[in-house]
Amino acid sequence: MDRMYRLTDALRCLPGVGPKSAQRMVYHLLQHQRQQGLNLAQCLEDALRHIGNCQRCNNFSEQTLCHLCSHPERNEKMLCVVESPADILAIEQSHAFNGRYFVLMGKISPIDGLGPEEIGLPRLQQLIQQEAIEEVILALSPGIEGQTTVHFIRQLLDNEPVKLSLPAQGIPSGGELEYLDSNTIGSALRNRAAVSA
Amino acid sequence: MDRMYRLTDALRCLPGVGPKSAQRMVYHLLQHQRQQGLNLAQCLEDALRHIGNCQRCNNFSEQTLCHLCSHPERNEKMLCVVESPADILAIEQSHAFNGRYFVLMGKISPIDGLGPEEIGLPRLQQLIQQEAIEEVILALSPGIEGQTTVHFIRQLLDNEPVKLSLPAQGIPSGGELEYLDSNTIGSALRNRAAVSA
Repeated sequence: MDRMYRLTDALRCLPGVGPKSAQRMVYHLLQHQRQQGLNLAQCLEDALRHIGNCQRCNNFSEQTLCHLCSHPERNEKMLCVVESPADILAIEQSHAFNGRYFVLMGKISPIDGLGPEEIGLPRLQQLIQQEAIEEVILALSPGIEGQTTVHFIRQLLDNEPVKLSLPAQGIPSGGELEYLDSNTIGSALRNRAAVSA
Repeated sequence: MDRMYRLTDALRCLPGVGPKSAQRMVYHLLQHQRQQGLNLAQCLEDALRHIGNCQRCNNFSEQTLCHLCSHPERNEKMLCVVESPADILAIEQSHAFNGRYFVLMGKISPIDGLGPEEIGLPRLQQLIQQEAIEEVILALSPGIEGQTTVHFIRQLLDNEPVKLSLPAQGIPSGGELEYLDSNTIGSALRNRAAVSA
């Protein structure tokens, strides 16, 4: 049963799949979904071999430029800096941003050997200089590494004629006050908005 | 992004994977686990193409006979009838049974067109007649279809010189009385055992 063992083990590269659920997947595929399983193997190989990164923004893309960078109607004066292509998806689903993106190769983390060069900040600076970008939104997740990265980017772009901004911090929709951390509540109170009449 | 869409869709053949977790898996594989993902594709195709069913007991097997049917030290007079190869795994992990197995092709379910022939009962009878089996344990999950299937097997083997038995019903280890259904508690009380001194 070596092949079953190898498949069980290989399935664990999927996020959220432990030994028990991997085993369940193997038995389920073998018993009920052989054709769909072969199709999955094909799609997996096909996607991993043909999806690369956009040369401009690092988003996932099958072409040199991703569909967002090559879209003629995106606002090219707005740039949103994110940590991963999954963040682009989340922002796109909000329909609240119509500019372009730049995906960092991680966050600054000296302990992991990730400095400004490693996460692609020189390329970000170059891109801002080349394209006449007016505003850069730094949409990095809060936390020490995110804040350090924001700090570095602010220093780096200090002499560039661009406006830097951060997404608002506050109470998420559906969030209940009693379960929110005091940092979030503090930000939400400090950044309170006047009620319009 | 057609390939990403196809992969997301294909991942949903895995049990417990919905649209959100499939999307998360795609982004995770593309960003962090490309090599492991290609290995998974390979293992998947390899397993699905080469793992078939044991000709004697229907368990998953790469050979004509599975490792349990061809094992020289299993008790060949004991036969445990189960619903799926996953049940064999569960029983083997209990180390409480050293005989051989027979996997039914489902449970009797007239509504799904599954009668005694479809689930392989004639082959079970033939096997019991050919091999000098002394006891058959019917380890089917409780419930109407399981009980119907047990009933059919009892009728079928009525004239065969074999002992039929069912696993004990009772309180599972770690089960808390207050959360158990009354059926289980009823069985456990009726089948109570004397405390040995």
